[in-house]
Parts: sequence; C-alpha cells; structure tokens
Amino acid sequence: MVKSKSWTMVKHFEGLPKLEDFKLEEKELPPLKDGELLLESVFLSVDPYMRPYSKRMMKPGDVMIGSQVARVVESKNPAFEVGTYHVTNVGWTTHFISDGAGFQSLPKEWPENLPRSLAVGAAGMPGYTAYFGLLEICNPKEGEVVLVNCAAGAVGSLVGQIAKIKGCKVVGSAGSDDKVTYLKEIGFDEAFNYKTVNSLEEALKNASPEGYDCYFENVGGNYADVALQQMKQFGRISVCGAISLYNDSVPATGPYIQTYMLFKQLRMEGFLVTRWMQRYPEAQKHLLKWIAEGKLKYHEHVTNGFENMPAGFIGMLTGENIGKAVIKV
Amino acid sequence: MVKSKSWTMVKHFEGLPKLEDFKLEEKELPPLKDGELLLESVFLSVDPYMRPYSKRMMKPGDVMIGSQVARVVESKNPAFEVGTYHVTNVGWTTHFISDGAGFQSLPKEWPENLPRSLAVGAAGMPGYTAYFGLLEICNPKEGEVVLVNCAAGAVGSLVGQIAKIKGCKVVGSAGSDDKVTYLKEIGFDEAFNYKTVNSLEEALKNASPEGYDCYFENVGGNYADVALQQMKQFGRISVCGAISLYNDSVPATGPYIQTYMLFKQLRMEGFLVTRWMQRYPEAQKHLLKWIAEGKLKYHEHVTNGFENMPAGFIGMLTGENIGKAVIKV
Repeated sequence: MVKSKSWTMVKHFEGLPKLEDFKLEEKELPPLKDGELLLESVFLSVDPYMRPYSKRMMKPGDVMIGSQVARVVESKNPAFEVGTYHVTNVGWTTHFISDGAGFQSLPKEWPENLPRSLAVGAAGMPGYTAYFGLLEICNPKEGEVVLVNCAAGAVGSLVGQIAKIKGCKVVGSAGSDDKVTYLKEIGFDEAFNYKTVNSLEEALKNASPEGYDCYFENVGGNYADVALQQMKQFGRISVCGAISLYNDSVPATGPYIQTYMLFKQLRMEGFLVTRWMQRYPEAQKHLLKWIAEGKLKYHEHVTNGFENMPAGFIGMLTGENIGKAVIKV
Repeated sequence: MVKSKSWTMVKHFEGLPKLEDFKLEEKELPPLKDGELLLESVFLSVDPYMRPYSKRMMKPGDVMIGSQVARVVESKNPAFEVGTYHVTNVGWTTHFISDGAGFQSLPKEWPENLPRSLAVGAAGMPGYTAYFGLLEICNPKEGEVVLVNCAAGAVGSLVGQIAKIKGCKVVGSAGSDDKVTYLKEIGFDEAFNYKTVNSLEEALKNASPEGYDCYFENVGGNYADVALQQMKQFGRISVCGAISLYNDSVPATGPYIQTYMLFKQLRMEGFLVTRWMQRYPEAQKHLLKWIAEGKLKYHEHVTNGFENMPAGFIGMLTGENIGKAVIKV
C-alpha cells in the first residue's frame, strides 16, 4: 500500500494565509486497476494565483489546488512508462493515481543540465504566462519601453528577459535590494526597490523619462494608479495579476481610470494563460531554447520538504522568493 | 467688412460650465488675400469632449474649441467654390478666413433630403466615433450582447443601431423616460432609465441575464463599476467617454478593476476617433448609406441662434438632448 499525503485548506483565508489554515492529511491509495498509473510528486509549484483561486474554486476541506512535476512509479497503462515525468494538476499531494488524462508530458529529450522543476517554472506555466502575456497582449516592438512589477518573481523575471530578447528597454521594480541586484544581473536596464524609493512616480519617471509603451501588471492597486499616468499614447497593459488586491476582504478603491484610458488611448487586457493551452508546446520550445542559449536566466527558490509547503506558499505571497518558488518533496 | 462673432472661455470651468464662463466677442475680418476664402458657420457642434479638452488644450480668453459645417461665401482660392460646404475646426465662431487646409469637404452629391448638419452628426465625427469605436474596438459578433450608456446621445444612439445592423442584441440606458421611448423606437432590444431603476445591477441583469460581450462606455465612474461585473468572459470595453467624471475637480474613486479584468479576461481600450482619420470617408459612406436605407435613424437637438450656444453646450452636458446637439446659426 502506498500512502499519499495532501495539504487541505481548513477554512477560507482571511487576508494573508496562515499556517493554521492548512492541514496535512494522509490516506492509503488502492491498488492500480488496468489503465491506471501511480505517480509521485517531485516538484510542486506554489504560485500567486492560488490565493484568489482558493476563494473561487475551493471549499473548506478541499485539497489545495496546484500543479506539480510528477514521476510515474508504477503503470498499468501502456501509454505511460515508469520513470517518465509529467506536469499534472492534482493539487498539493505527494502520491496519486491517474489514467493520465490531461497530462502535459515532459519532452523525452529534456536537457540533462536543466532541472525538471523548470516544467512548472521558466519552461512551464509561469514561462507560458510571461511569453504569451507579454508577446500576445503587449505586443512589444523593438525600441519600446516595457515596465514590469514583481519583476523578480517567477513570471516578472521572464517577462523582462523576453522583452530584452525582443529589443526593448526594460524597467523592473521589486521589493528588496537583493531582488534589484538580481534584476540588473539578468539584464534589466533599470530596476528599483519600490519599498525604498521616495516616490514611485519619481522612480518611474527617472527610469524612463519618456514614459512606457508596455506595462506588464502583476500588482494592481496603488501601483497601477501611478504607473498608468506614466504610459505613453497607445500604451498596452497586460493584466497578469493583482497581488496587492488578493488578500483584501473589502475591495480597495482608487481613482477611476477611464479618463486615462481615453486620452492616452490605452489598451488593458486581463488574461488567464490557459487560453493559449493549445500553444504551450510552441512556447516551451522557445523558452527551453532561450534558456539553453543563456538568453533566459532563471532562478528557483526551493523549499525542501512537502511538510513545509504551506510556509513556502506564504513566503511566496509575501515576496521572500527570487524567481520561481517550488517545493522539492 | 465682415464681422465675426466668437464665444471665448473666460476662465477654466469648475464643475458644470456656467453661462458666465463664456464671453461673446466680435471682430472685423480683413479683406481676403489671394488663396484665402471666407466662410460662415451654418451648423456648429457641441460635444461632450469639449468639457475635458477645454482643460487640456485651452487657456482663459481662447475661443472655445469645436467644429462646424461652414459654407464658402467668398473665395480667392480656385480649389474652393463659393456655396460649397466643409467641416472645419475653428471653434465657436460665426465667420472666418482660411486657406482651406484641413477641411473635410462635404460630398458634392450630398443627399437632398438630409440636413448638412449630419456632417457634424450621424455622418460626421459622432458617426465615425460610433462606427470605429464599436466595430474596431468591441468587434461585436452576430448574436452577441452589446451594452451602451448615454444611449440616446449623439454617439450612443448610433452605436446601438450599428450593433443591430451587425446582428447583436442591444441594451441601452439613458437618463429620462422620453429617451428610453426613443431608444425603443430606433430598435434597441432593451432600454431603461438609469435614474429611476431600483438598482443598476438589477436593471442590467434583467436586460441580459447572460451578461454582456461588449460595452460601449460613455459614462465611467460608478456605472462602470456595476457594468464591469456583468461582463462575460472575453468581454470587450470600448472607452469612448467618461462624462460622469469630466466635471470632477478631485478625481472620483471606486473599486480597483484589475481582478475583474483578470478573471474575466476583459479587454478595455480607450480611443480618440482621430486615430482613424484616414478612414473617415469609408465610415461616412457606410453611415450615409445606412441612413438612406432607413437602417440608421438620427435625431438632432437643434438650438437656434449662435447667441444661445453656451446654453446649448451646458444643456448637452446635463443630458437635455436626444441625439446630436447642434447649434443652427
């Protein structure tokens, strides 16, 4: 008998999630039937989307939502060999039985020098998010100026580097001096610590006195109020996240934006990366190529041990990570 | 000697413009030089954009901005015959001298049964605004649901009818029962008086329980907060105006919209119609054709007398007009 551990959500989060909101549960898995396979999670992903989605898609007692890189340890399904790796979406769970439906299998020719955790990172969902969210929605042109916040995060750090690959000037903001140093290391033209600048407006103006053509939005709220005013005519805003708003019980308020949208002829679009699901292989191919060429640098913030997953999640929400936050079982 | 009258702005408006903010000035025009022509305004346009633009583009003492249909009364320029009509942008002025640069000439074959005021109305700037702002930004598909506010206004009434021509279900709101009656007359599927409904949310839900694919925004502010929540996945919002915000000295505030934009994958774009200037003839051709076929009905709210132009402008801002507000000299 195989034992499977899962983290469930005890009750809906209020504000920032707390350790006591999670409960570790254990159950025994039944023997495999024909067509089934047993997998073990190798790397589990913790991502900002889990906070708002817990409210929208879960009820108390449910296993926390999420994806992982999992390895087949036993198979009664000829389509899935033991030892192969797949990205699955079964939530915060160590072992599980599946028929393989909906798996995104890792390429067999996975580069030897790259960790498979990239399949939930720079060459996985966060990578696809950066790739499509920037290229399809902002459509940045060579020579344009791109602003990204949460720039040292899993998605933001890739957005900035993809914009550099496309010949843009890239400005990023993050919440610590270490992160700012990291952004400069990976090629951002300008980077600042939004927590220590005198004023965000001044920092944005200094970083690009001419304004911004593209704005990859991860934060929302007050940050967006200020950034919107620095957009150029025909600026494009890709709304990938709004992490400053996820923990609010009462919706926060700010100035109406219609007049900015109007007179600057701005375009703002929110997206969920799943709309491009059919094109994930295309994105993964590009991302792995750029990584192999050294054009796309990645950094992982690894929390060791499944038992530490809630702490890893909370840490990611408070911004302790540089790059992608993953849990190594 | 020809005398020209102009309305100037005495000082920047605070809140709703008042009659004493305007001053009628008179001056004598010099004789024409070679290449010049003398024109008289026949119809002058009053439009919502003048309120925010007075703040952005004018200083106290300037002639009020705006366009008119003007007739050539004397010409020393062989390119412009006496008796021809042109749309010009010289502001609130009865007579003026020009070299003809930048004129949009009315087609010589102007339909006999249509007033030339349409060239600043349904077959002019408001028409182009409705045509491009709806078709290019909302891109409504047959069977989709389109919401438009200020629906009995110069632009809104055309937006709804163009959406009907494209096979959409159209919901409009306006600020009086007479306007609602008018909207039903011109073919809106659903229309309501936003001032008398119990709740805007309920009215929007009743009019289209399934939600809205397209939202043509003329109002902004609280209206937008409620409407945004009724959008369907992948909804498109065309920000044409924000009349509820134009008179604010201190920017009004409301809930941040990034989470709606994100989870519904909405696209919002502001526009100024001038971006399609090269395509005005295309739009005018379609608009005049639809008008001639009876598919596009227009209504004009005519204020007689140049001396009443400030009152006509203020009345338009407070919503006393159905359809296009024009001043007949």
